[in-house]
Amino acid sequence: MTLDAPRHDGRAPGDLRPVTLTRNVMKNALGSCMAEFGDTRVLCAATIEDGVPGWRKASRKGWVTAEYAMLPASTSTRSRRETRSRKGRSMEIERLIGRSLRAVVNMQALGEVTVTVDCDVIQADGGTRTASVTGAWVALHDALAEWVRAGRIPRLPLTGQVAAVSMGVVDGRCLLDLDYSEDSRAEVDMNLVGCADGTLVEVQGTGERIAFDRAQLDALLDLGQGAVARLCDLQTEVTGFRK
Amino acid sequence: MTLDAPRHDGRAPGDLRPVTLTRNVMKNALGSCMAEFGDTRVLCAATIEDGVPGWRKASRKGWVTAEYAMLPASTSTRSRRETRSRKGRSMEIERLIGRSLRAVVNMQALGEVTVTVDCDVIQADGGTRTASVTGAWVALHDALAEWVRAGRIPRLPLTGQVAAVSMGVVDGRCLLDLDYSEDSRAEVDMNLVGCADGTLVEVQGTGERIAFDRAQLDALLDLGQGAVARLCDLQTEVTGFRK
Amino acid sequence: MTLDAPRHDGRAPGDLRPVTLTRNVMKNALGSCMAEFGDTRVLCAATIEDGVPGWRKASRKGWVTAEYAMLPASTSTRSRRETRSRKGRSMEIERLIGRSLRAVVNMQALGEVTVTVDCDVIQADGGTRTASVTGAWVALHDALAEWVRAGRIPRLPLTGQVAAVSMGVVDGRCLLDLDYSEDSRAEVDMNLVGCADGTLVEVQGTGERIAFDRAQLDALLDLGQGAVARLCDLQTEVTGFRK
Amino acid sequence: MTLDAPRHDGRAPGDLRPVTLTRNVMKNALGSCMAEFGDTRVLCAATIEDGVPGWRKASRKGWVTAEYAMLPASTSTRSRRETRSRKGRSMEIERLIGRSLRAVVNMQALGEVTVTVDCDVIQADGGTRTASVTGAWVALHDALAEWVRAGRIPRLPLTGQVAAVSMGVVDGRCLLDLDYSEDSRAEVDMNLVGCADGTLVEVQGTGERIAFDRAQLDALLDLGQGAVARLCDLQTEVTGFRK
Amino acid sequence: MTLDAPRHDGRAPGDLRPVTLTRNVMKNALGSCMAEFGDTRVLCAATIEDGVPGWRKASRKGWVTAEYAMLPASTSTRSRRETRSRKGRSMEIERLIGRSLRAVVNMQALGEVTVTVDCDVIQADGGTRTASVTGAWVALHDALAEWVRAGRIPRLPLTGQVAAVSMGVVDGRCLLDLDYSEDSRAEVDMNLVGCADGTLVEVQGTGERIAFDRAQLDALLDLGQGAVARLCDLQTEVTGFRK
Amino acid sequence: MTLDAPRHDGRAPGDLRPVTLTRNVMKNALGSCMAEFGDTRVLCAATIEDGVPGWRKASRKGWVTAEYAMLPASTSTRSRRETRSRKGRSMEIERLIGRSLRAVVNMQALGEVTVTVDCDVIQADGGTRTASVTGAWVALHDALAEWVRAGRIPRLPLTGQVAAVSMGVVDGRCLLDLDYSEDSRAEVDMNLVGCADGTLVEVQGTGERIAFDRAQLDALLDLGQGAVARLCDLQTEVTGFRK
Repeated sequence: MTLDAPRHDGRAPGDLRPVTLTRNVMKNALGSCMAEFGDTRVLCAATIEDGVPGWRKASRKGWVTAEYAMLPASTSTRSRRETRSRKGRSMEIERLIGRSLRAVVNMQALGEVTVTVDCDVIQADGGTRTASVTGAWVALHDALAEWVRAGRIPRLPLTGQVAAVSMGVVDGRCLLDLDYSEDSRAEVDMNLVGCADGTLVEVQGTGERIAFDRAQLDALLDLGQGAVARLCDLQTEVTGFRK
Repeated sequence: MTLDAPRHDGRAPGDLRPVTLTRNVMKNALGSCMAEFGDTRVLCAATIEDGVPGWRKASRKGWVTAEYAMLPASTSTRSRRETRSRKGRSMEIERLIGRSLRAVVNMQALGEVTVTVDCDVIQADGGTRTASVTGAWVALHDALAEWVRAGRIPRLPLTGQVAAVSMGVVDGRCLLDLDYSEDSRAEVDMNLVGCADGTLVEVQGTGERIAFDRAQLDALLDLGQGAVARLCDLQTEVTGFRK
Repeated sequence: MTLDAPRHDGRAPGDLRPVTLTRNVMKNALGSCMAEFGDTRVLCAATIEDGVPGWRKASRKGWVTAEYAMLPASTSTRSRRETRSRKGRSMEIERLIGRSLRAVVNMQALGEVTVTVDCDVIQADGGTRTASVTGAWVALHDALAEWVRAGRIPRLPLTGQVAAVSMGVVDGRCLLDLDYSEDSRAEVDMNLVGCADGTLVEVQGTGERIAFDRAQLDALLDLGQGAVARLCDLQTEVTGFRK
Repeated sequence: MTLDAPRHDGRAPGDLRPVTLTRNVMKNALGSCMAEFGDTRVLCAATIEDGVPGWRKASRKGWVTAEYAMLPASTSTRSRRETRSRKGRSMEIERLIGRSLRAVVNMQALGEVTVTVDCDVIQADGGTRTASVTGAWVALHDALAEWVRAGRIPRLPLTGQVAAVSMGVVDGRCLLDLDYSEDSRAEVDMNLVGCADGTLVEVQGTGERIAFDRAQLDALLDLGQGAVARLCDLQTEVTGFRK
Repeated sequence: MTLDAPRHDGRAPGDLRPVTLTRNVMKNALGSCMAEFGDTRVLCAATIEDGVPGWRKASRKGWVTAEYAMLPASTSTRSRRETRSRKGRSMEIERLIGRSLRAVVNMQALGEVTVTVDCDVIQADGGTRTASVTGAWVALHDALAEWVRAGRIPRLPLTGQVAAVSMGVVDGRCLLDLDYSEDSRAEVDMNLVGCADGTLVEVQGTGERIAFDRAQLDALLDLGQGAVARLCDLQTEVTGFRK
Repeated sequence: MTLDAPRHDGRAPGDLRPVTLTRNVMKNALGSCMAEFGDTRVLCAATIEDGVPGWRKASRKGWVTAEYAMLPASTSTRSRRETRSRKGRSMEIERLIGRSLRAVVNMQALGEVTVTVDCDVIQADGGTRTASVTGAWVALHDALAEWVRAGRIPRLPLTGQVAAVSMGVVDGRCLLDLDYSEDSRAEVDMNLVGCADGTLVEVQGTGERIAFDRAQLDALLDLGQGAVARLCDLQTEVTGFRK
């Protein structure tokens, strides 16, 4: 296969799948967003509760956290409901989403409330964590905007946007936004969380079966940074937010 | 209020909310159905796995079971994710769904496989358990039809349909298909699971704050049996199934 | 078999097993009752603690709850001790007992205390949940009477009595108060919780292998309502309570 | 107080409370015994299941184990049901009961079965663990006798009897068989498990608030050994067993 | 084998293994001690936190507790990490360590703080619980001395020392301080916790496969009391504490 | 502060703390290593068991996994023992260690066995996960070498070495191998796992309070890659391994 041959679904190596961010999909949540990256669909819902966790009490600062789970039928073979004990993978992902969102929230301006963004994977086809981050920011934005409208805070306590994308090396080629069939045979698997201004919030790269070299790392980062910028543009388009 | 005054949303006492049953909403499940009763939305997905639970081994019969959970953001105030310990209410509901489905499956004809129907409440506005039963039957039907198409069994091992609806006494009036605002102040709360032929599978009635009399019970059952028939018609319409 | 042939233990279809309600069987509980329905024996013990669950704080109302468990050796084959995770069935039953008792307690008059009625099945031979409700009311009555005697409340905050009985369809016949051998092959299984004045608190009917029709439901309800009246008489006899 | 003044209930320092061992109290268990030491009542039930725990497989030897729990209402203030996590105290006690019983069972003669003796405390007034051991032996004996009667084993695989009693130092005096009021203010708390032939199976002594000396230990052991002999006589009386 | 033949490692029946108590082995703990009895190595670390458990609130007294665990690789075959559910054995041992330490602490003088002594077994070769008690006292002493130095309390709230040793009957011989190879085939297994003044805090003896007689018990206690005195001397040597 | 001013402990920005890797520190483990990076001390122990997890059965390939935990007293304020539920952080770390080790093991050559490397943090002063990876490789190497010596496999199934180091941005400066005081106020926190040949296995970078730019990322990676090479040299020195 030549290096610039189209991928199994016709995309070029640096193409994102069709991405849609649909707001206001849940009646009861303050902010909500269905994030779709191809067949991957994640329902993100942000709720705000008064008070902060015990360790943060009396700090006059807020807190932003996330929960992540997959519906049992979201995967190609039914996965077990996480009711008895949490899976390590889910905990790892929800910690990532939480850190990413906190990077762009002014906690002092938020005040002593806790924002929880639930990311529930309705359908999984690769890249669920990056779709979660990208959609979670929209749900967070909308919940905060609602908080402003309700007169609870004078202005949006957001210092920027975060969006995320996956990259990987498959059959020696650096590809953007892997779907499940690509992800499951990738040699290198990366996730990048970044801001609209080009800065980075989180970089995670793993050699699944083989180690990778610095040149590959650099090429993947280039692909990812470009895509994060495009995803931030899309967030701006649907929410109107601009820092 | 006169007894036949319209309800807060304009419905007559014996009206269902707008009900839709949308099939094939999940790429990975063998059968799936989004059941909507007004603003209540439940995603039902049926998967089939080889083998049966230990206690049923060597019986040459299959097994049908259900799992039920609510997304944290599905309710008006965020509910806690059931990851540490299951809630009694959810276990009670998933046992009801399982029993209802098993009433219309020929286990011998199914063979030694386990069908699991996951009912995940996306949005809750009253009647989630009855919407779950009604949608779960459609997901079950479609998964079994797929199993037939795949040559795993010669014909559909279904002996009938099941659908369910809630009824209740609110301000002294017998009402059908309560939404959350009605349900939360109902004096009597009932659920009826029935078949297309008018027989009953499950009757549950509870006096929430007051006891009720036999005449009220009879009036509620009348309302429910009529509605179950209409819901079975809708199932037939979307699946083409007729016993 | 003719429809009015005696049952395997000689009872007529509408007969209860011998029922005894023995009070004051536990030294440490405020109220206690050993409820026996034939070989089914349930130890019911009511204790009162100051304070109410968090969600009910500052309501000036009390709370009544129940816990239900079976001794491992109470069943014909040893059942597992519920120490790791609660069984769904037990949670379902203790929710039923709690709702039934709350239907006849004036929570305002009770004041901010929590009454817990523990129902521990010593020996199981069918109908453990209905024996639990019937005996739990006696234990509750006695604990509240003790509370009155101790000067904690001026008068008994009970608005009535609750008792419960099971019914079922076995080999096509409608039977009252099933023992284990009948229950395990019943086609329809019902439980009725009612008050001394003939009103109903809870109705639960399930078609175990087949659906049932409205005429059967009505016949079972008739059997059950008569039996609940007789059980309430027995409660009155042992406690002296009359509304 | 002089050293030989009667105790609060009139007993002399070396007196047991009234002890009764009532057999066949449970319909479903192979062997059962209600052990009463004064107001302490423990229901002991022995069941036999085919097979042994995994680590003992293929040993051609049996296994004997015990479970111990208190009914919530057995204690003077309601204790929490052990459904979420086992209490360390209960696990410690059931390990003691199991070891005691295993000391007098010929595991080879028993064959590859597991005997479980459930000890459920119905009423607690001190000495529940020693009443458990004493009653558990009777339940075990009766279950094994039933096993012989059923032709599963040719003869009783018991090499002896075990019985247990508590002792303690209260207000400087060495006392036998402490009730709760004595136990709760004892300076030293001991339990002795022994056989009919005067040998010892288990000795446990703890200085609760103060350390004790060797002379006190010796005096307590003397009291205990005498009582164990009397309890073994009682076991012989009710079961007819004599080694 | 003659009764005074040397043991497999050359020791006489009444010999301890080489014992060392090394202080200040952890940078972050207030007091710490590596206790080594031959190849058995236990890391004991004492920390002090303000406040006491709920049930002891407003008592103006402190609390001392212990936690015990084995590193998975400490045993000859890897043992499972106790992350899901605690093992009964570990809970039993940490309760023993806690009781032993509390016997020599003046809780009033300590004030409303909680001392936790963590005993983590780095390498297990028999006698881990007795090494834990012996080392835990040193860690406790050092933490309390640090508390005095910090001006939190005027003087050491210790009323004495506790040390512990194991004894057992192996091949009919009474031996002191069993290593794993001896312990695993011991007929009788004992543990003694005692004070520097010769008094006893805890005695535990178990016949593993056979019952034992009073003469053996007395001989084991003699061996143990002598050894506890020597271990207390060693504690005095390393800490300088003398009551 | 100028950019090349010494750090609080005198190190230059690109200096590692003193690192020692001490082998054979545990009697019972097949391979063991105490890894020390300054005051951080991690005990790594590798054990090999026959068989592989269920999902890998019949693959003829082995499996390598890791477990990570901190002793409660390892941190500056006592951390809770992870006995009830695992901490997300620990699960994240042990997944990282496992992936890192698997990158250099030939699973086919290993055969159907499971190697578990336990990493227990004895003392924590920053960089516990990177010390774990570095020491775990040594323990793994030694266990595999022992497996070769025992004739279980013909040659070492290692395809290379892995070592890890942390980097971070503190007060705007890029620093290598952060200790706790630096780590707790770092703006950017990175971990790099790499091989002796300069290739990378895992890259993780997080902006803790602020986002970072690509230039900083590149500078940190440069620091890290140099350090990994030095750590691999040290591993070679102590084990003699060279690919």
